[in-house]
Amino acid sequence: MISFKEAHKKVVDNKQDFGTELIPLKLAMGRVLAEEVIADRDFPPFNRATKDGIAINYESIASGQTTFKIEGVLPAGVAPKPLSNTEHAIEIMTGAVVPDNANTVVMYEHVVIENGWATLIHNPTKGQDIHRQGSDRRMGETVLESNTKITAAEIGILASVGKSTVLVKRLPRIAIISTGNELVEVGEQPLPHQIRKSNIHTLFGALSQEGIVPKEFHLVDDKEIIRKELANILYNFEVVLLSGGVSKGKYDYIPDVLEELGVEKEFHRVLQKPGKPFWFGKQPIIGTLVFSFPGNPASTFASYQVYFKDWLKCSLNLPNPTINVILEEGIPVKGDLTLLLRVRLKCTDGQLLVSQVRDNGSGDLTSLALTDGFIVLDPDQEFYEAGESVSFVPTRQLW
Amino acid sequence: MISFKEAHKKVVDNKQDFGTELIPLKLAMGRVLAEEVIADRDFPPFNRATKDGIAINYESIASGQTTFKIEGVLPAGVAPKPLSNTEHAIEIMTGAVVPDNANTVVMYEHVVIENGWATLIHNPTKGQDIHRQGSDRRMGETVLESNTKITAAEIGILASVGKSTVLVKRLPRIAIISTGNELVEVGEQPLPHQIRKSNIHTLFGALSQEGIVPKEFHLVDDKEIIRKELANILYNFEVVLLSGGVSKGKYDYIPDVLEELGVEKEFHRVLQKPGKPFWFGKQPIIGTLVFSFPGNPASTFASYQVYFKDWLKCSLNLPNPTINVILEEGIPVKGDLTLLLRVRLKCTDGQLLVSQVRDNGSGDLTSLALTDGFIVLDPDQEFYEAGESVSFVPTRQLW
Repeated sequence: MISFKEAHKKVVDNKQDFGTELIPLKLAMGRVLAEEVIADRDFPPFNRATKDGIAINYESIASGQTTFKIEGVLPAGVAPKPLSNTEHAIEIMTGAVVPDNANTVVMYEHVVIENGWATLIHNPTKGQDIHRQGSDRRMGETVLESNTKITAAEIGILASVGKSTVLVKRLPRIAIISTGNELVEVGEQPLPHQIRKSNIHTLFGALSQEGIVPKEFHLVDDKEIIRKELANILYNFEVVLLSGGVSKGKYDYIPDVLEELGVEKEFHRVLQKPGKPFWFGKQPIIGTLVFSFPGNPASTFASYQVYFKDWLKCSLNLPNPTINVILEEGIPVKGDLTLLLRVRLKCTDGQLLVSQVRDNGSGDLTSLALTDGFIVLDPDQEFYEAGESVSFVPTRQLW
Repeated sequence: MISFKEAHKKVVDNKQDFGTELIPLKLAMGRVLAEEVIADRDFPPFNRATKDGIAINYESIASGQTTFKIEGVLPAGVAPKPLSNTEHAIEIMTGAVVPDNANTVVMYEHVVIENGWATLIHNPTKGQDIHRQGSDRRMGETVLESNTKITAAEIGILASVGKSTVLVKRLPRIAIISTGNELVEVGEQPLPHQIRKSNIHTLFGALSQEGIVPKEFHLVDDKEIIRKELANILYNFEVVLLSGGVSKGKYDYIPDVLEELGVEKEFHRVLQKPGKPFWFGKQPIIGTLVFSFPGNPASTFASYQVYFKDWLKCSLNLPNPTINVILEEGIPVKGDLTLLLRVRLKCTDGQLLVSQVRDNGSGDLTSLALTDGFIVLDPDQEFYEAGESVSFVPTRQLW
């Protein structure tokens, strides 16, 4: 057996680089940028009017002028033309290019326009209501760093610099495998001694949130069949997530078969609860990683969240800071196991507070609906006080 | 003009119910349950062994017995059979049904097995290592409430009760519309006075995170074309998000055309920055809602996050609590506008702390890459102190 900390370190130390791929901008939400993105023009690309009104040259005001002959109208999307006379004005629309020899925009609310003449009713400031060329970013400057997670804001920036395709980190090809003869399909009516598959669906859902569409398999408790199918799966996928079959039972063939297939065990069994029988290893020739989670729902779920998600973040070079939350109640830690306790999270006046979810052990699937994440309590500390901040592994978004 | 609070209230008061739809479990991630989900069996459905070992009847131990004849092996997924003799044991695997006349499981680590006999080396507790039938939930009890957002945990629960299809809230049919003659496609090289479309891509990305695939349109600055196209769009979609064309410019035909098409204005212009020219209304006959956002990138983005997302949550009957965060620095509020300030968020020792993002006004698209959300500062308060907690509108997930 291995401590939780050692196990976690071994998993993230096995981070892998799956290379990059070029994808359409439309599919880039949630992916991780694999290129530095450069401004292909100044941002904004010209002196841009930010109000609807008139563009004037401030020098004429400085010399006492308050009424301006209007030369015409300058809409957005039209090539600019200079004022024919710097004592004139031109009506200008938001988004239009301010003429080179104008330098101030006065919004309609601050002028009176009559018979082709505009009279100021408020004193403008020189340069006002112009978003200056290059004031946000200069051409050639970085607008997005590599290794950035792409959200709606980044999509807008990518669009504005012309990235109709984006270079992103490739995601691993993942197989998810259920095991156990007691399992039937979701659509079937189980016999009294059977249950429906659930872990594989939980894993499918969780991976889909990472942009990964895993391939599903089921292995019956037959060593020959397991050997044959696992050999194929190890060869065709980069990461394998198994649920069940790693305990000490007579039909728990998975660890033996994995080792027969050359998957080198990094560890089996971790001093943690739930999820003690977790098996983790790597096939060194083909590079496939195997996360073999215990079959109890809370064990599979906790292990996925605690190990796999951190491994994925590290593999994608995303930041992976520890998140701390504040205990609403004191919690004792008995024994020598690291506890992954189900908690409910609330956010009050800028504080993240957690309280324990009443649960019925690692088989209690229904309690996971009330769970926002797991807190990680170290057995080196006998008691965690109310108000103490502890490490938190979220299983649900806060907003 | 209308205050930010009044505008926000008018928007969420216009929440709509778009009905329900039945979808495959595989597509249910992120959707909102529209049915109460009931346990179709007890959870667990039988007395389930939680360890690999032997099943015995505790009465025999109570009468001094420590060695048991092994009757056979009981794997998971097999119909249970009672012990032929309650002084015997049967080997039992995790997930198997505990025989009716056994009541205690002793794991392999706590017995020695030789020549068909098992000898206890640790004293068991009566009833240990059995996950009792119905101890998590009884058949007929609720396992998931209606109006629950479906995450990976809920997927597992839905699978286990046989929900291969799930009744969820239907999402609205949404049109997103860019306006303005200065805009060109992302893949095009803009002329010096043009810029590429970005807001519509930001909106597309943001909506895709809600599970909505909007339909995109572009309207040129021509009143007749706008009237014709908008009439069609209003008829074919339930919600319309426009970006641009709502200022005071000569070619800002949108408000006029919307009113000509019978869209009743709820408000136009809000005492807020950015996003002051925001226009919101409803076509009362066909029910279509129109969010017409100002065209500056930060204005569209902030208005989407602050108004549309709250409207969507309310329409889906999801909880929509105010999130508060703590200011790292004092911030003055000048003037009479509610400020939506771009902030960066960090989580330290269970506290959510925000600091202002340096930005260059509502046209500054690049600053949004550094932004985790907006804080909402009320002009009724002249100064917000460092350490004060303020309302926060997230634009990025915390984890």
